[in-house]
Formats: sequence, C-alpha cells, structure tokens
Amino acid sequence: MKTRDRILAAALHLFNLQGERKVTTNHIAAHLGMSPGNLYYHFKNKKEIIYELFLSYEVMVDSTLDVPTDRQLTIEDKLRYLQKVFQGLWEYRFMHRDMEHLLMSEERLHNRYRQFFRRCQKKTETIYQGLHDANIINIEQRDLEGLALNTWVVVTSWYSFLQCNLLSDADQGITLDMLKGGIYQVFQLERPYLTEEYREQVTAMQEAFIAKPDWL
Amino acid sequence: MKTRDRILAAALHLFNLQGERKVTTNHIAAHLGMSPGNLYYHFKNKKEIIYELFLSYEVMVDSTLDVPTDRQLTIEDKLRYLQKVFQGLWEYRFMHRDMEHLLMSEERLHNRYRQFFRRCQKKTETIYQGLHDANIINIEQRDLEGLALNTWVVVTSWYSFLQCNLLSDADQGITLDMLKGGIYQVFQLERPYLTEEYREQVTAMQEAFIAKPDWL
Repeated sequence: MKTRDRILAAALHLFNLQGERKVTTNHIAAHLGMSPGNLYYHFKNKKEIIYELFLSYEVMVDSTLDVPTDRQLTIEDKLRYLQKVFQGLWEYRFMHRDMEHLLMSEERLHNRYRQFFRRCQKKTETIYQGLHDANIINIEQRDLEGLALNTWVVVTSWYSFLQCNLLSDADQGITLDMLKGGIYQVFQLERPYLTEEYREQVTAMQEAFIAKPDWL
Repeated sequence: MKTRDRILAAALHLFNLQGERKVTTNHIAAHLGMSPGNLYYHFKNKKEIIYELFLSYEVMVDSTLDVPTDRQLTIEDKLRYLQKVFQGLWEYRFMHRDMEHLLMSEERLHNRYRQFFRRCQKKTETIYQGLHDANIINIEQRDLEGLALNTWVVVTSWYSFLQCNLLSDADQGITLDMLKGGIYQVFQLERPYLTEEYREQVTAMQEAFIAKPDWL
C-alpha cells in the first residue's frame, strides 16, 4: 500500500472510531508510526484528508447506483442497492455522524456535496423508473421525484436518527445491524407502490430487516 | 414579562439568529441590559436555559399533536398539524440545526428527548389511524408505524437537509418558506395511501407547498 493510501485508511479508521473532531493529523501520524512531516508531505492538513475520503465515498456510491443498460432491474437489484448504500454509510460513518459540521467548515466540500446530492437524486429517480419499467413498482411520474427525495432524507439521516432518538448514553454505540434497520424504512417508503405481482416477495425481503428490539 | 421569561425569550432569539454554540450567558445578559449575576440567579448555566427551552418546545408539540375525541379528523386537521409542526421547527430552529451536538452534551436532555420521540411516534400513529378512520387514507395496521417513523425522520431532518444539500455558503440562510417545503415531502409520504374520495383535494393542498426553485 502506498503511504498516501495508508494515511487515508488510518484516518478513516480513527475518524470512525473516535469522531473526526477528536482526531488530529498528529494522531494519524502516530497511529502509523510516521513523522508528522511525512504526513504533511502527502496532505497539507486534515481538511485535505477529509476531502479525499469524501471523493472515495463518492466513487463508491456513484458506482453503486448505476443502472444496468442491457437488462431490466430485478428485486435482487433493489436489495443490492440498499445493502451497498447502507454498507457505504457504515464504512464512512464519521461523515454521517457530523455532516453539517463538516460541510459548514469547508466550502469546497460543501459545493462538491451539493453536486453529489443532485447526481444521487437523478440516479435514484432512474432506479425507481427502472423498477417501474420492470413492473416491480407502479408509480406516476409526478411521484418519482418526491419518493427519491424522501429516500435520500431517510438514508442520509438514519445514522443521526439512531444517535438522537434511540441510543442512550450508556449504549456502546451504533452497530452495523442497527444501521441496517434503516433498510426497513426505505422499503417502507416504496412499499405502497409495489405491484401485486411482487408485493409478497418484496415484503418478505423487507421483513428481514425489521428492527424491533426494545429500543424502538 | 417576568425576568425568567425575558431571559428565555432572548436566549431563543439569539440562539436562532447566531447558533447556540456562539451565544454565551454573558451575551444573553448583555442583550437584555442585565448583569450576569442577575441571569445566574434564574439559570445556573446555558444548559439550564436550553433545557427549559426544550420543555416549552415539547409542550407546544404535544398539544399540537392531540387528536380530537369528539369528532372525526378532516383534511383541514391534517394541514393544520403540518403547519403547526413546521412552525414549531422554525420557532425553535436552533435545536434542529444542531440536535446531535445538543443531545450528546447533556444526558438529561437526551433522555427527555428520547421519551419525547416515543410519545410523538404514538401520537403520529394515532393521527394516521384517525385519518384512516375518517376514510381520508387507507392504510394497513402493519404500515402505520413505518409511515409514522418516516414522517418523524423527514420532519426532524428537514432543516439539516436544507443546510447540507441545498444552501450554498453564499446564501442568506434558511427561510420559513424554504422550511415549509418539507410539508410537501410529508404529504408525499402519505400520498399513496389517500383514498379516491380525497385524493384530488389533498393533492391540491400538497401542491401549495411545492418547493421547486432553482435550488432543488
């Protein structure tokens, strides 16, 4: 692994573990047994590291949301989209824990994020259109945008929702399973649009993510 | 107005205007032409003030979400619920701008907020049940909870959504009209469940909140 990539991997690990605000470039260098000077040779400050991590996240999500052009979508695709999106939330959870703070403190990142949001919206609409064309859901054109927007809000707010509403301070923190409870809620958004043909199968898929422990 | 209430009103005003993190008890006292000692006589620190403001917010929301017991719900009730909930978001916007930070920094507030969330969930389910009983929506029991939960997520995340995804740093900030764009999205959540009888009327209500300026 190149030094630059090792720095990014260590930063992601530490940010996720401790929260970005608590981790300095010196912590990252120390974690790697590297001199701060060596780290600065690759990244001039922490913002540069965060920006690079966001770019990797963006690449991951962009490729996840691609729609195949040579065939129709299936319900397995639908599940795969959700699994991968929530896996991405988990891998880059430091960002979703503190998005507003990160964006408000760097204009370049905020601009990039706004473009990312618009692109994701278009891609999500294309996916829902694809599910409609495959007769998995039946949705009017006028509802596509609103559904895609609510999907974005639920997905991107889910981490913070768990933190604010469900976890007590004594809890050990959010786990991947708790995070994936959000998949149930995204299924719920789409559920009224399911066609008779697929309703039962997709409902069974949704139920696999039911998150009804004591905390809800 | 009692001194205690004047302090709370001034704190709310300043928190909304400048963000809670930037406002100290000294700023609040200075704004009121009051000595810090006089302020401390009423509130021992900023956390006490925030906690009291949350209690007022809670009272407002709790009474807003009450369901009449002597008559069926109407579509005007539905609109009134949304208008009042978003008005509350606006009046206490400092909290919704930085909820995670506020809750993570005080356990007492976090505990209270988690109870508030559960109570709001129950009340929202009761409202949806009431709309079902009044034949405005047609929803299965199994979908009630999921719909109520998505409603909570969209409402409570809307302020942050605007901030992160739509506003550029050059913008002057979020206006009440922008915030009310969220009402459109809550209507969107419920729309698939509308009965034929009410579909047209409720859709017209929804359209009044369409927020499609260049920023979306």
